[in-house]
Amino acid sequence: MIQLSKFPINTLKSQPKVSDNRSTSLLLQAGLIRQEMAGVYNYLPLWFKVLKKIENIVREEMNASWAFELLMPALGSKQHWEQTGRWDSIDVLFKVPASGGKEYALNPTQEDIVTPLIKEFIQSYKDLEFWVYHIQHKFRNEARAKSGLLRWREFLMKDLYSFHKNEESFQVYYDNQKQVYTRVFEKLGLGNDTYMTLASGGDFTDKHSHEFQTILDIGEDIIYICDDCNTSHNEEIVGDSFACSNCGSGNHKTHKASEVGNIFPLSTKFTDACGVKYADENGKEKPVFMGSYGIGISRVMWVMAEYFMDETGIAWPEAVAPASHYIIVLGEDNIEKASELAKQIESEWGEVILDDRMGRKDWFGQKMGDAELLWIPNIIVLSPKTLEKWGYEVRKRWEKEWAIV
Amino acid sequence: MIQLSKFPINTLKSQPKVSDNRSTSLLLQAGLIRQEMAGVYNYLPLWFKVLKKIENIVREEMNASWAFELLMPALGSKQHWEQTGRWDSIDVLFKVPASGGKEYALNPTQEDIVTPLIKEFIQSYKDLEFWVYHIQHKFRNEARAKSGLLRWREFLMKDLYSFHKNEESFQVYYDNQKQVYTRVFEKLGLGNDTYMTLASGGDFTDKHSHEFQTILDIGEDIIYICDDCNTSHNEEIVGDSFACSNCGSGNHKTHKASEVGNIFPLSTKFTDACGVKYADENGKEKPVFMGSYGIGISRVMWVMAEYFMDETGIAWPEAVAPASHYIIVLGEDNIEKASELAKQIESEWGEVILDDRMGRKDWFGQKMGDAELLWIPNIIVLSPKTLEKWGYEVRKRWEKEWAIV
Repeated sequence: MIQLSKFPINTLKSQPKVSDNRSTSLLLQAGLIRQEMAGVYNYLPLWFKVLKKIENIVREEMNASWAFELLMPALGSKQHWEQTGRWDSIDVLFKVPASGGKEYALNPTQEDIVTPLIKEFIQSYKDLEFWVYHIQHKFRNEARAKSGLLRWREFLMKDLYSFHKNEESFQVYYDNQKQVYTRVFEKLGLGNDTYMTLASGGDFTDKHSHEFQTILDIGEDIIYICDDCNTSHNEEIVGDSFACSNCGSGNHKTHKASEVGNIFPLSTKFTDACGVKYADENGKEKPVFMGSYGIGISRVMWVMAEYFMDETGIAWPEAVAPASHYIIVLGEDNIEKASELAKQIESEWGEVILDDRMGRKDWFGQKMGDAELLWIPNIIVLSPKTLEKWGYEVRKRWEKEWAIV
Repeated sequence: MIQLSKFPINTLKSQPKVSDNRSTSLLLQAGLIRQEMAGVYNYLPLWFKVLKKIENIVREEMNASWAFELLMPALGSKQHWEQTGRWDSIDVLFKVPASGGKEYALNPTQEDIVTPLIKEFIQSYKDLEFWVYHIQHKFRNEARAKSGLLRWREFLMKDLYSFHKNEESFQVYYDNQKQVYTRVFEKLGLGNDTYMTLASGGDFTDKHSHEFQTILDIGEDIIYICDDCNTSHNEEIVGDSFACSNCGSGNHKTHKASEVGNIFPLSTKFTDACGVKYADENGKEKPVFMGSYGIGISRVMWVMAEYFMDETGIAWPEAVAPASHYIIVLGEDNIEKASELAKQIESEWGEVILDDRMGRKDWFGQKMGDAELLWIPNIIVLSPKTLEKWGYEVRKRWEKEWAIV
């Protein structure tokens, strides 16, 4: 239970203006975030609860697909980044000077760390296939960070890496991950507007990679969705005139979108660089095929804020809302009654925000405003008036009518 | 359920030698950790499970004492570190060069971040007191990192910060935290040998701070425990001859010990530096008193490994063991039966490691060795022999006798 009388973090009366998106203004107003510096944020307690809920939805799906969770560090050894040739080629790599004239990387991704890490565990065909993941902070030395969705210098990601005997085995797993990702974004309530999108495979492979793009007015990407078969393409792979890669149709719509996840065939790029080989059934040395699969947890959270906001606040799906119920209590004498109700709700539902701030006619307007701004799915009013006639009033945040209980 | 036939991370046949402690050798042998570089570790899946369990025990106690969890970033702004005068005074502060000629800190602690963060939420006496905490990776640019317990460059900490109207209110909270910390270390099974120890208050206060020190042969600190009243003192505050700070007695024992937590009175050092003041009942501006309270989660984990190890492995308390049961199954035909048993145990107890690796007479010796090395509290054997006579055999890891089920 969060008792607002003891909770230090008040909402703001008005929305701070930020340059490029309204969700960031709302998050600031609601007391959910504060900027540490451009591209780096403090997550205040109610926002942290949303983060943990999203993280756990992602974690459940990873564990359900038999992935092993581990934790690789934020600091990476220079030697590992040099081994893959990326110490100098990644321009957003933070390089941290350390005592003794050393330098470390502040990892922006972890292919370069996970591949040498698993090397000793891959000896023979019996050791393959497997996949590991972690949920860890990542860092990018962005030249120009912006407020909100784009170009963060520090962010939280789930990244999974899979290792396979051959390309066929890789492909089966990769196709399975498409379904896992689709399920994650459905569970988060983004399913209707999130498209698996063909994108460039970069330098690693002739194949396409697949991005998961959520349609959003402030999105930084443009996607082309085929009218006839619904296949989505990132603008970067569309030539001068659109022809659907699946059905050949030229009919399409374009949308702005924001990338919330991606899955990437890496072929043998990193395993070769790190000397990861296995002995097949005949003792012959063979290359190991690899894929990487990312979901930007903090990015998803911000996209959800932007996607679910309405005129008064952020319309969280119940699965990720900072709390299940918001109880507005009026009258000092009624706090104990409201507190009992809160305990009862918590034992059956989820966490409750108890707005027991008192004084100045108990701030009804302020309390209702905060409940709507935070968009807690269920709002309850318990006041002398409701107690006189019945017990309390309750309504879903998205309904106008109050129910009497 | 962890099926070892699908789990890539094997134990090693022998213990790698590391310079300064046996627990690190055991953790390497058991496939729990791998070094990324000196002072920086990869936490492999079973070790990650232990980490999460310790983290959650700490979190439960924090939440039970009404602390609000939030998340501050790993990167800190230079301005914040300059404001408190510590940009130049902390010699282990990693300074990260960033594009545009900027520099960031890689936070080794967070007083310098949390104080400016909460400043706007403290206006009047009504806003006090409160406390917030987070569990976040910390970084120290150590000149000489060692293997094992000491001088890590990256580690996980719980740090809590409290803010108060006056010294008395601070002291009540501080004394309460002594009990909270005592409870945490009891829950972790370290209670008998962990001493609340008087230590220097540093530059911030004339008062002592309090460390929680676990007696350990490889500990880096020396503590003086009074024979008459059991009060513990860090060597740093003991003069030429010991006199107990509590009862004056000169009788004492000394022990090597390792610091697992500390609580620290900060007085108004950081709040003054950041201009955090509040208006009292008469509208008069007053200083804000502050304390900080740390538990090194990864340090605690390593201390537990060292503290609980015996001849064959690490004797985890059940509350933090990587799994509850270890099922050794012999005979390919029995895997399904063992798997059903595992599911049944998981629904009633906790996670199961199912050792279903097959071939070479099913590796009984290897399997039993791994079960003992990992010290899973309950070991089960299900084999053609046990099935012929009864169902399976089970024993507690620390008992010699098998029970027949």
